[in-house]
Amino acid sequence: MIRYKAIISYDGYRFAGFQRQPHARSVQEEFENTLTKINRGQAVTIQGAGRTDSGVHALGQVLHFDLPQLYDEEKLRFALDTQTPEDIAVRSIELVDKDFHARYSKHSKTYEFLVDIGRPKNPLMRHYATPFPYPLDIALLEKALTKLEGTHDFTGFTASGTAVKDKVRTITEASLEFDQERHLLIFTFSGNGFLYKQIRNMVGTLLKIGNGRMPLEQIDKILAEKNRQLAGPTAAPNGLYLKEVRYER
Amino acid sequence: MIRYKAIISYDGYRFAGFQRQPHARSVQEEFENTLTKINRGQAVTIQGAGRTDSGVHALGQVLHFDLPQLYDEEKLRFALDTQTPEDIAVRSIELVDKDFHARYSKHSKTYEFLVDIGRPKNPLMRHYATPFPYPLDIALLEKALTKLEGTHDFTGFTASGTAVKDKVRTITEASLEFDQERHLLIFTFSGNGFLYKQIRNMVGTLLKIGNGRMPLEQIDKILAEKNRQLAGPTAAPNGLYLKEVRYER
Repeated sequence: MIRYKAIISYDGYRFAGFQRQPHARSVQEEFENTLTKINRGQAVTIQGAGRTDSGVHALGQVLHFDLPQLYDEEKLRFALDTQTPEDIAVRSIELVDKDFHARYSKHSKTYEFLVDIGRPKNPLMRHYATPFPYPLDIALLEKALTKLEGTHDFTGFTASGTAVKDKVRTITEASLEFDQERHLLIFTFSGNGFLYKQIRNMVGTLLKIGNGRMPLEQIDKILAEKNRQLAGPTAAPNGLYLKEVRYER
Repeated sequence: MIRYKAIISYDGYRFAGFQRQPHARSVQEEFENTLTKINRGQAVTIQGAGRTDSGVHALGQVLHFDLPQLYDEEKLRFALDTQTPEDIAVRSIELVDKDFHARYSKHSKTYEFLVDIGRPKNPLMRHYATPFPYPLDIALLEKALTKLEGTHDFTGFTASGTAVKDKVRTITEASLEFDQERHLLIFTFSGNGFLYKQIRNMVGTLLKIGNGRMPLEQIDKILAEKNRQLAGPTAAPNGLYLKEVRYER
Protein backbone atom coordinates (compact mmCIF):
# COMPACT_ATOMS: atom_id res chain seq x y z
CA MET A 1 0.00 0.00 0.00
CA ILE A 2 1.12 3.53 -0.75
CA ARG A 3 0.31 6.40 1.62
CA TYR A 4 -0.91 9.77 0.36
CA LYS A 5 -1.27 13.07 2.21
CA ALA A 6 -3.98 15.46 0.97
CA ILE A 7 -4.63 19.12 1.75
CA ILE A 8 -8.28 19.98 1.17
CA SER A 9 -10.59 22.94 1.66
CA TYR A 10 -14.33 22.85 2.12
CA ASP A 11 -17.38 24.98 2.72
CA GLY A 12 -18.78 23.63 6.00
CA TYR A 13 -22.26 25.04 5.48
CA ARG A 14 -23.85 21.95 3.98
CA PHE A 15 -21.88 19.42 6.05
CA ALA A 16 -22.77 17.96 9.45
CA GLY A 17 -19.03 18.11 10.11
CA PHE A 18 -15.85 16.44 8.92
CA GLN A 19 -16.39 13.07 10.55
CA ARG A 20 -18.55 10.33 9.05
CA GLN A 21 -21.83 9.81 10.89
CA PRO A 22 -25.11 8.06 10.16
CA HIS A 23 -27.92 9.94 8.37
CA ALA A 24 -25.93 13.15 7.82
CA ARG A 25 -23.66 14.44 5.08
CA SER A 26 -19.99 14.56 6.10
CA VAL A 27 -16.75 15.56 4.38
CA GLN A 28 -15.28 12.15 5.24
CA GLU A 29 -18.11 10.24 3.59
CA GLU A 30 -18.03 12.33 0.40
CA PHE A 31 -14.25 12.09 0.14
CA GLU A 32 -14.17 8.34 0.83
CA ASN A 33 -16.91 7.74 -1.74
CA THR A 34 -14.84 9.51 -4.40
CA LEU A 35 -11.64 7.69 -3.39
CA THR A 36 -13.43 4.35 -3.46
CA LYS A 37 -14.67 5.06 -6.99
CA ILE A 38 -11.12 5.90 -8.11
CA ASN A 39 -9.92 2.71 -6.36
CA ARG A 40 -12.30 0.64 -8.55
CA GLY A 41 -14.86 0.05 -5.86
CA GLN A 42 -12.45 -1.14 -3.16
CA ALA A 43 -13.32 0.79 0.02
CA VAL A 44 -10.80 3.41 1.17
CA THR A 45 -10.81 5.04 4.61
CA ILE A 46 -9.31 8.46 5.31
CA GLN A 47 -7.88 9.88 8.50
CA GLY A 48 -8.14 13.64 9.08
CA ALA A 49 -5.83 15.84 11.16
CA GLY A 50 -8.82 16.89 13.22
CA ARG A 51 -12.58 16.92 13.22
CA THR A 52 -14.38 20.09 12.35
CA ASP A 53 -17.92 20.60 13.64
CA SER A 54 -21.06 21.12 11.63
CA GLY A 55 -20.85 24.44 9.76
CA VAL A 56 -17.11 24.92 10.33
CA HIS A 57 -15.04 25.59 7.21
CA ALA A 58 -11.56 24.45 6.21
CA LEU A 59 -8.99 26.13 4.04
CA GLY A 60 -6.24 23.61 4.79
CA GLN A 61 -7.54 20.42 6.41
CA VAL A 62 -5.01 17.58 6.10
CA LEU A 63 -5.81 13.89 5.73
CA HIS A 64 -4.07 10.67 4.73
CA PHE A 65 -5.15 7.45 3.05
CA ASP A 66 -3.60 4.34 1.52
CA LEU A 67 -4.03 3.06 -2.02
CA PRO A 68 -2.62 -0.13 -3.57
CA GLN A 69 -1.49 1.75 -6.66
CA LEU A 70 1.11 4.43 -7.35
CA TYR A 71 -0.53 7.52 -8.85
CA ASP A 72 1.05 10.67 -10.18
CA GLU A 73 0.42 13.25 -7.42
CA GLU A 74 -1.03 15.97 -9.65
CA LYS A 75 -3.16 13.54 -11.66
CA LEU A 76 -4.64 12.07 -8.50
CA ARG A 77 -5.22 15.60 -7.09
CA PHE A 78 -7.01 16.64 -10.27
CA ALA A 79 -9.17 13.49 -10.34
CA LEU A 80 -10.18 13.94 -6.69
CA ASP A 81 -10.76 17.68 -7.07
CA THR A 82 -13.06 17.27 -10.04
CA GLN A 83 -14.93 14.21 -8.69
CA THR A 84 -15.62 15.42 -5.15
CA PRO A 85 -18.72 17.63 -4.72
CA GLU A 86 -18.35 21.33 -5.48
CA ASP A 87 -18.10 22.29 -1.80
CA ILE A 88 -14.84 20.34 -1.44
CA ALA A 89 -11.59 21.27 -3.20
CA VAL A 90 -8.39 19.22 -3.24
CA ARG A 91 -5.45 21.60 -2.99
CA SER A 92 -2.57 19.12 -3.03
CA ILE A 93 -1.67 15.43 -2.95
CA GLU A 94 1.73 14.25 -1.76
CA LEU A 95 3.31 10.80 -1.46
CA VAL A 96 4.37 10.29 2.17
CA ASP A 97 6.16 7.66 4.24
CA LYS A 98 4.14 4.87 5.77
CA ASP A 99 4.74 6.36 9.24
CA PHE A 100 3.01 9.66 8.44
CA HIS A 101 -0.32 9.93 10.22
CA ALA A 102 -2.52 13.01 9.69
CA ARG A 103 -3.76 12.86 13.27
CA TYR A 104 -0.91 11.36 15.30
CA SER A 105 2.19 12.79 13.58
CA LYS A 106 3.28 15.81 15.60
CA HIS A 107 1.72 18.99 14.24
CA SER A 108 0.38 22.43 15.04
CA LYS A 109 -2.82 23.96 13.73
CA THR A 110 -3.94 27.45 12.82
CA TYR A 111 -7.57 28.47 12.95
CA GLU A 112 -9.18 31.74 11.87
CA PHE A 113 -12.44 33.12 13.17
CA LEU A 114 -14.18 35.79 11.08
CA VAL A 115 -16.54 38.26 12.70
CA ASP A 116 -18.69 40.52 10.51
CA ILE A 117 -18.86 43.83 12.40
CA GLY A 118 -20.64 45.70 9.59
CA ARG A 119 -24.03 47.30 10.15
CA PRO A 120 -26.16 45.90 8.69
CA LYS A 121 -24.47 42.52 8.37
CA ASN A 122 -23.35 41.50 4.90
CA PRO A 123 -25.90 39.05 3.41
CA LEU A 124 -23.20 37.60 1.16
CA MET A 125 -21.13 36.60 4.21
CA ARG A 126 -23.95 35.11 6.26
CA HIS A 127 -22.54 31.58 6.05
CA TYR A 128 -18.90 32.69 6.20
CA ALA A 129 -18.59 35.05 9.16
CA THR A 130 -20.39 35.47 12.48
CA PRO A 131 -22.21 38.82 12.69
CA PHE A 132 -21.50 41.04 15.70
CA PRO A 133 -22.90 44.52 14.90
CA TYR A 134 -22.11 45.97 18.35
CA PRO A 135 -19.32 48.20 19.70
CA LEU A 136 -15.99 46.47 20.27
CA ASP A 137 -12.89 47.80 22.03
CA ILE A 138 -10.04 46.52 19.85
CA ALA A 139 -7.27 47.44 22.33
CA LEU A 140 -9.08 45.49 25.05
CA LEU A 141 -9.49 42.50 22.72
CA GLU A 142 -5.76 42.53 22.04
CA LYS A 143 -4.98 42.51 25.75
CA ALA A 144 -7.38 39.58 26.24
CA LEU A 145 -5.70 37.68 23.39
CA THR A 146 -2.31 38.09 25.05
CA LYS A 147 -3.72 36.45 28.17
CA LEU A 148 -4.74 33.39 26.13
CA GLU A 149 -1.28 32.90 24.61
CA GLY A 150 1.07 30.43 26.28
CA THR A 151 0.55 27.12 28.06
CA HIS A 152 -2.65 26.85 30.10
CA ASP A 153 -5.23 24.34 31.27
CA PHE A 154 -8.13 25.27 28.96
CA THR A 155 -10.81 23.26 30.81
CA GLY A 156 -12.87 26.42 31.30
CA PHE A 157 -13.03 26.93 27.54
CA THR A 158 -14.07 23.45 26.47
CA ALA A 159 -17.48 21.80 26.44
CA SER A 160 -18.09 20.02 29.75
CA GLY A 161 -18.08 16.24 29.63
CA THR A 162 -15.23 15.98 27.13
CA ALA A 163 -13.51 12.58 27.24
CA VAL A 164 -9.98 14.02 26.90
CA LYS A 165 -8.19 13.96 30.30
CA ASP A 166 -5.26 16.33 29.81
CA LYS A 167 -6.59 19.77 28.97
CA VAL A 168 -3.28 21.61 29.02
CA ARG A 169 -2.52 23.11 25.61
CA THR A 170 -0.15 25.74 24.25
CA ILE A 171 -1.35 28.65 22.14
CA THR A 172 1.64 30.04 20.24
CA GLU A 173 -0.32 32.84 18.58
CA ALA A 174 -3.59 34.58 19.42
CA SER A 175 -3.95 37.70 17.32
CA LEU A 176 -6.41 40.03 15.67
CA GLU A 177 -6.59 41.77 12.30
CA PHE A 178 -9.16 44.21 10.96
CA ASP A 179 -10.17 44.07 7.31
CA GLN A 180 -11.63 47.55 6.98
CA GLU A 181 -13.01 47.17 3.47
CA ARG A 182 -14.89 43.95 4.27
CA HIS A 183 -15.86 45.02 7.83
CA LEU A 184 -14.28 41.84 9.12
CA LEU A 185 -12.47 41.17 12.35
CA ILE A 186 -10.15 38.19 11.84
CA PHE A 187 -8.97 36.27 14.92
CA THR A 188 -6.02 33.91 14.40
CA PHE A 189 -5.19 31.10 16.84
CA SER A 190 -2.19 28.77 16.44
CA GLY A 191 -1.21 25.99 18.76
CA ASN A 192 -0.29 22.37 19.31
CA GLY A 193 -3.87 21.29 19.75
CA PHE A 194 -7.29 22.66 20.63
CA LEU A 195 -10.04 21.15 22.76
CA TYR A 196 -13.62 20.53 21.65
CA LYS A 197 -15.30 23.92 21.00
CA GLN A 198 -12.32 25.71 22.62
CA ILE A 199 -11.94 28.34 19.90
CA ARG A 200 -15.66 29.08 19.64
CA ASN A 201 -15.85 29.41 23.45
CA MET A 202 -12.78 31.69 23.49
CA VAL A 203 -14.28 33.88 20.75
CA GLY A 204 -17.66 34.06 22.51
CA THR A 205 -15.82 35.19 25.64
CA LEU A 206 -13.61 37.67 23.77
CA LEU A 207 -16.61 39.35 22.13
CA LYS A 208 -18.25 39.78 25.52
CA ILE A 209 -15.07 41.35 26.92
CA GLY A 210 -14.58 43.59 23.86
CA ASN A 211 -18.19 44.72 24.17
CA GLY A 212 -17.66 45.67 27.83
CA ARG A 213 -20.03 43.10 29.25
CA MET A 214 -17.29 41.06 30.96
CA PRO A 215 -14.08 42.30 32.64
CA LEU A 216 -10.71 41.59 31.03
CA GLU A 217 -9.59 39.71 34.17
CA GLN A 218 -12.33 37.12 33.59
CA ILE A 219 -9.85 35.33 31.28
CA ASP A 220 -7.46 34.71 34.20
CA LYS A 221 -10.37 33.53 36.31
CA ILE A 222 -11.68 31.08 33.68
CA LEU A 223 -8.16 29.64 33.25
CA ALA A 224 -7.51 29.43 36.99
CA GLU A 225 -10.90 28.12 38.11
CA LYS A 226 -11.37 25.80 35.06
CA ASN A 227 -15.10 26.54 35.10
CA ARG A 228 -17.00 26.66 31.79
CA GLN A 229 -19.81 28.60 33.49
CA LEU A 230 -17.52 31.60 33.88
CA ALA A 231 -16.84 31.87 30.12
CA GLY A 232 -18.97 33.54 27.45
CA PRO A 233 -21.33 31.76 25.03
CA THR A 234 -20.12 29.44 22.26
CA ALA A 235 -19.70 31.52 19.09
CA ALA A 236 -21.53 30.23 15.98
CA PRO A 237 -19.61 27.77 13.76
CA ASN A 238 -20.02 29.79 10.53
CA GLY A 239 -17.08 32.10 11.38
CA LEU A 240 -14.57 29.32 12.08
CA TYR A 241 -11.97 28.11 9.57
CA LEU A 242 -9.30 25.42 9.96
CA LYS A 243 -6.64 27.34 8.08
CA GLU A 244 -3.48 25.27 8.21
CA VAL A 245 -1.92 22.13 9.70
CA ARG A 246 1.87 22.13 9.97
CA TYR A 247 3.76 18.89 10.62
CA GLU A 248 7.20 18.59 12.19
CA ARG A 249 9.71 16.85 9.99
CA MET B 1 -47.32 60.30 0.09
CA ILE B 2 -43.73 60.46 1.26
CA ARG B 3 -40.89 59.18 -0.92
CA TYR B 4 -38.05 57.08 0.50
CA LYS B 5 -34.76 56.08 -1.09
CA ALA B 6 -33.20 52.79 0.05
CA ILE B 7 -29.74 51.33 -0.48
CA ILE B 8 -29.80 47.55 -0.21
CA SER B 9 -27.43 44.64 -0.70
CA TYR B 10 -28.33 41.07 -1.54
CA ASP B 11 -26.92 37.66 -2.29
CA GLY B 12 -28.18 36.91 -5.80
CA TYR B 13 -27.69 33.15 -5.53
CA ARG B 14 -31.21 32.23 -4.47
CA PHE B 15 -32.98 34.93 -6.55
CA ALA B 16 -34.23 34.70 -10.14
CA GLY B 17 -33.13 38.35 -10.37
CA PHE B 18 -34.14 41.72 -8.99
CA GLN B 19 -37.35 42.16 -10.95
CA ARG B 20 -40.66 40.59 -9.94
CA GLN B 21 -41.71 37.71 -12.14
CA PRO B 22 -44.26 34.91 -11.92
CA HIS B 23 -43.30 31.58 -10.30
CA ALA B 24 -39.80 32.68 -9.28
CA ARG B 25 -38.29 34.32 -6.22
CA SER B 26 -37.23 37.93 -6.82
CA VAL B 27 -35.70 40.67 -4.67
CA GLN B 28 -38.55 43.01 -5.65
CA GLU B 29 -41.24 40.59 -4.49
CA GLU B 30 -39.54 39.90 -1.15
CA PHE B 31 -38.93 43.60 -0.50
CA GLU B 32 -42.45 44.63 -1.51
CA ASN B 33 -43.95 41.93 0.70
CA THR B 34 -42.06 43.28 3.70
CA LEU B 35 -42.97 46.90 2.88
CA THR B 36 -46.63 45.97 2.47
CA LYS B 37 -46.61 44.31 5.90
CA ILE B 38 -45.10 47.45 7.46
CA ASN B 39 -47.71 49.53 5.58
CA ARG B 40 -50.52 47.56 7.32
CA GLY B 41 -51.39 45.43 4.32
CA GLN B 42 -51.69 48.27 1.79
CA ALA B 43 -49.66 47.22 -1.28
CA VAL B 44 -46.41 49.11 -1.92
CA THR B 45 -44.46 48.99 -5.19
CA ILE B 46 -40.74 49.67 -5.42
CA GLN B 47 -38.68 50.97 -8.32
CA GLY B 48 -35.05 49.87 -8.57
CA ALA B 49 -32.15 51.74 -10.20
CA GLY B 50 -31.62 48.78 -12.47
CA ARG B 51 -32.45 45.13 -12.83
CA THR B 52 -29.91 42.54 -11.91
CA ASP B 53 -30.09 39.11 -13.54
CA SER B 54 -30.53 35.78 -11.84
CA GLY B 55 -27.48 35.02 -9.68
CA VAL B 56 -26.09 38.57 -9.81
CA HIS B 57 -25.30 40.16 -6.43
CA ALA B 58 -25.70 43.71 -5.17
CA LEU B 59 -23.71 45.61 -2.59
CA GLY B 60 -25.42 48.93 -3.27
CA GLN B 61 -28.63 48.59 -5.27
CA VAL B 62 -30.83 51.69 -4.95
CA LEU B 63 -34.61 51.79 -5.00
CA HIS B 64 -37.43 54.16 -4.09
CA PHE B 65 -40.99 53.76 -2.82
CA ASP B 66 -43.81 55.89 -1.41
CA LEU B 67 -45.53 55.50 1.94
CA PRO B 68 -48.46 57.51 3.33
CA GLN B 69 -46.72 57.87 6.69
CA LEU B 70 -43.60 59.68 7.87
CA TYR B 71 -41.16 57.23 9.46
CA ASP B 72 -37.88 57.88 11.22
CA GLU B 73 -35.24 56.88 8.66
CA GLU B 74 -33.19 54.64 10.95
CA LYS B 75 -36.26 53.00 12.50
CA LEU B 76 -37.66 52.17 9.07
CA ARG B 77 -34.24 50.88 7.94
CA PHE B 78 -33.99 48.64 10.98
CA ALA B 79 -37.55 47.31 10.54
CA LEU B 80 -36.94 46.52 6.85
CA ASP B 81 -33.50 45.03 7.49
CA THR B 82 -34.77 42.66 10.15
CA GLN B 83 -38.00 41.70 8.37
CA THR B 84 -36.60 41.04 4.88
CA PRO B 85 -35.14 37.53 4.32
CA GLU B 86 -31.57 36.92 5.44
CA ASP B 87 -30.15 37.23 1.90
CA ILE B 88 -31.25 40.89 1.70
CA ALA B 89 -29.80 43.67 3.88
CA VAL B 90 -31.04 47.26 4.08
CA ARG B 91 -28.03 49.55 4.36
CA SER B 92 -29.77 52.92 4.48
CA ILE B 93 -33.11 54.69 4.18
CA GLU B 94 -33.35 58.38 3.26
CA LEU B 95 -36.27 60.74 2.83
CA VAL B 96 -36.15 62.20 -0.70
CA ASP B 97 -38.03 64.73 -2.79
CA LYS B 98 -41.03 63.57 -4.78
CA ASP B 99 -39.07 64.08 -8.02
CA PHE B 100 -36.38 61.56 -7.10
CA HIS B 101 -36.69 58.41 -9.20
CA ALA B 102 -34.27 55.51 -8.64
CA ARG B 103 -34.31 54.63 -12.33
CA TYR B 104 -34.89 57.92 -14.16
CA SER B 105 -32.97 60.42 -12.00
CA LYS B 106 -29.60 60.91 -13.65
CA HIS B 107 -27.03 58.53 -12.19
CA SER B 108 -23.94 56.48 -12.84
CA LYS B 109 -23.33 52.90 -11.74
CA THR B 110 -20.32 50.90 -10.65
CA TYR B 111 -20.15 47.15 -11.08
CA GLU B 112 -17.49 44.74 -9.91
CA PHE B 113 -16.76 41.35 -11.43
CA LEU B 114 -14.81 38.85 -9.31
CA VAL B 115 -12.79 36.10 -10.96
CA ASP B 116 -11.34 33.30 -8.82
CA ILE B 117 -7.98 32.50 -10.44
CA GLY B 118 -6.87 30.11 -7.69
CA ARG B 119 -6.07 26.49 -8.47
CA PRO B 120 -8.07 24.67 -7.38
CA LYS B 121 -10.98 27.06 -7.17
CA ASN B 122 -12.08 28.10 -3.69
CA PRO B 123 -15.20 26.10 -2.71
CA LEU B 124 -16.22 28.87 -0.30
CA MET B 125 -16.38 31.36 -3.18
CA ARG B 126 -18.26 29.16 -5.65
CA HIS B 127 -21.37 31.37 -5.59
CA TYR B 128 -19.44 34.64 -5.24
CA ALA B 129 -16.76 34.60 -7.94
CA THR B 130 -16.41 33.04 -11.39
CA PRO B 131 -13.57 30.51 -11.50
CA PHE B 132 -10.93 30.87 -14.21
CA PRO B 133 -7.99 28.63 -13.26
CA TYR B 134 -6.02 29.32 -16.46
CA PRO B 135 -3.06 31.59 -17.33
CA LEU B 136 -3.90 35.29 -17.69
CA ASP B 137 -1.69 38.11 -18.98
CA ILE B 138 -2.52 40.99 -16.64
CA ALA B 139 -0.73 43.64 -18.73
CA LEU B 140 -2.74 42.58 -21.76
CA LEU B 141 -5.97 42.71 -19.76
CA GLU B 142 -5.14 46.26 -18.69
CA LYS B 143 -4.58 47.31 -22.30
CA ALA B 144 -7.92 45.75 -23.27
CA LEU B 145 -9.69 47.59 -20.44
CA THR B 146 -8.32 50.93 -21.69
CA LYS B 147 -9.89 50.21 -25.06
CA LEU B 148 -13.31 49.80 -23.41
CA GLU B 149 -13.15 53.13 -21.58
CA GLY B 150 -14.81 56.14 -23.18
CA THR B 151 -17.94 56.58 -25.30
CA HIS B 152 -18.71 53.72 -27.68
CA ASP B 153 -21.59 51.92 -29.34
CA PHE B 154 -21.62 48.71 -27.27
CA THR B 155 -24.01 46.75 -29.57
CA GLY B 156 -21.37 44.03 -30.01
CA PHE B 157 -21.31 43.43 -26.25
CA THR B 158 -25.04 43.19 -25.60
CA ALA B 159 -27.45 40.29 -26.07
CA SER B 160 -28.94 40.40 -29.56
CA GLY B 161 -32.61 41.31 -29.78
CA THR B 162 -32.47 43.94 -27.01
CA ALA B 163 -35.35 46.42 -27.24
CA VAL B 164 -33.17 49.47 -26.41
CA LYS B 165 -32.44 51.47 -29.59
CA ASP B 166 -29.53 53.71 -28.59
CA LYS B 167 -26.60 51.52 -27.60
CA VAL B 168 -24.05 54.29 -27.12
CA ARG B 169 -22.78 54.36 -23.55
CA THR B 170 -19.84 55.92 -21.72
CA ILE B 171 -17.54 53.88 -19.51
CA THR B 172 -15.72 56.27 -17.19
CA GLU B 173 -13.63 53.58 -15.52
CA ALA B 174 -12.63 50.06 -16.55
CA SER B 175 -9.92 48.78 -14.24
CA LEU B 176 -8.41 45.72 -12.66
CA GLU B 177 -7.13 44.85 -9.21
CA PHE B 178 -5.52 41.66 -7.93
CA ASP B 179 -6.28 40.42 -4.43
CA GLN B 180 -3.28 38.12 -3.98
CA GLU B 181 -4.35 36.61 -0.67
CA ARG B 182 -7.80 35.64 -1.94
CA HIS B 183 -6.63 34.72 -5.46
CA LEU B 184 -9.20 37.12 -6.85
CA LEU B 185 -9.08 39.29 -9.92
CA ILE B 186 -11.46 42.22 -9.42
CA PHE B 187 -12.71 44.08 -12.51
CA THR B 188 -14.38 47.46 -11.89
CA PHE B 189 -16.64 49.15 -14.45
CA SER B 190 -18.24 52.57 -13.95
CA GLY B 191 -20.45 54.40 -16.38
CA ASN B 192 -23.68 56.18 -17.15
CA GLY B 193 -25.50 53.00 -18.06
CA PHE B 194 -24.88 49.45 -19.16
CA LEU B 195 -26.74 47.34 -21.69
CA TYR B 196 -28.29 43.94 -21.02
CA LYS B 197 -25.48 41.42 -20.28
CA GLN B 198 -22.88 44.01 -21.39
CA ILE B 199 -20.54 43.52 -18.45
CA ARG B 200 -20.70 39.73 -18.51
CA ASN B 201 -20.02 39.78 -22.27
CA MET B 202 -17.11 42.19 -21.80
CA VAL B 203 -15.62 39.99 -19.05
CA GLY B 204 -16.05 36.84 -21.15
CA THR B 205 -14.17 38.60 -23.97
CA LEU B 206 -11.48 39.99 -21.64
CA LEU B 207 -10.74 36.55 -20.19
CA LYS B 208 -10.32 35.13 -23.69
CA ILE B 209 -7.91 37.94 -24.59
CA GLY B 210 -5.98 37.61 -21.33
CA ASN B 211 -5.68 33.89 -21.92
CA GLY B 212 -4.24 34.47 -25.42
CA ARG B 213 -7.12 32.92 -27.30
CA MET B 214 -8.26 36.20 -28.88
CA PRO B 215 -6.14 39.14 -30.10
CA LEU B 216 -6.22 42.44 -28.20
CA GLU B 217 -7.44 44.21 -31.36
CA GLN B 218 -10.64 42.16 -31.30
CA ILE B 219 -12.06 44.79 -28.88
CA ASP B 220 -11.78 47.50 -31.59
CA LYS B 221 -13.36 45.13 -34.09
CA ILE B 222 -16.32 44.26 -31.82
CA LEU B 223 -16.96 47.96 -31.14
CA ALA B 224 -16.61 48.95 -34.81
CA GLU B 225 -18.54 46.09 -36.39
CA LYS B 226 -21.21 45.93 -33.62
CA ASN B 227 -21.35 42.16 -33.99
CA ARG B 228 -22.03 40.01 -30.90
CA GLN B 229 -20.64 36.97 -32.73
CA LEU B 230 -17.15 38.48 -32.59
CA ALA B 231 -17.14 38.77 -28.80
CA GLY B 232 -16.32 36.08 -26.22
CA PRO B 233 -18.83 34.04 -24.22
CA THR B 234 -21.10 35.56 -21.55
CA ALA B 235 -19.34 35.20 -18.18
CA ALA B 236 -21.35 33.48 -15.42
CA PRO B 237 -23.53 35.75 -13.22
CA ASN B 238 -22.02 34.59 -9.90
CA GLY B 239 -19.02 36.94 -10.24
CA LEU B 240 -21.05 40.11 -10.89
CA TYR B 241 -21.88 42.72 -8.24
CA LEU B 242 -23.83 45.98 -8.56
CA LYS B 243 -21.55 47.92 -6.25
CA GLU B 244 -22.80 51.50 -6.22
CA VAL B 245 -25.33 53.88 -7.82
CA ARG B 246 -24.41 57.56 -7.67
CA TYR B 247 -27.05 60.23 -8.38
CA GLU B 248 -26.37 63.74 -9.59
CA ARG B 249 -27.64 66.44 -7.27
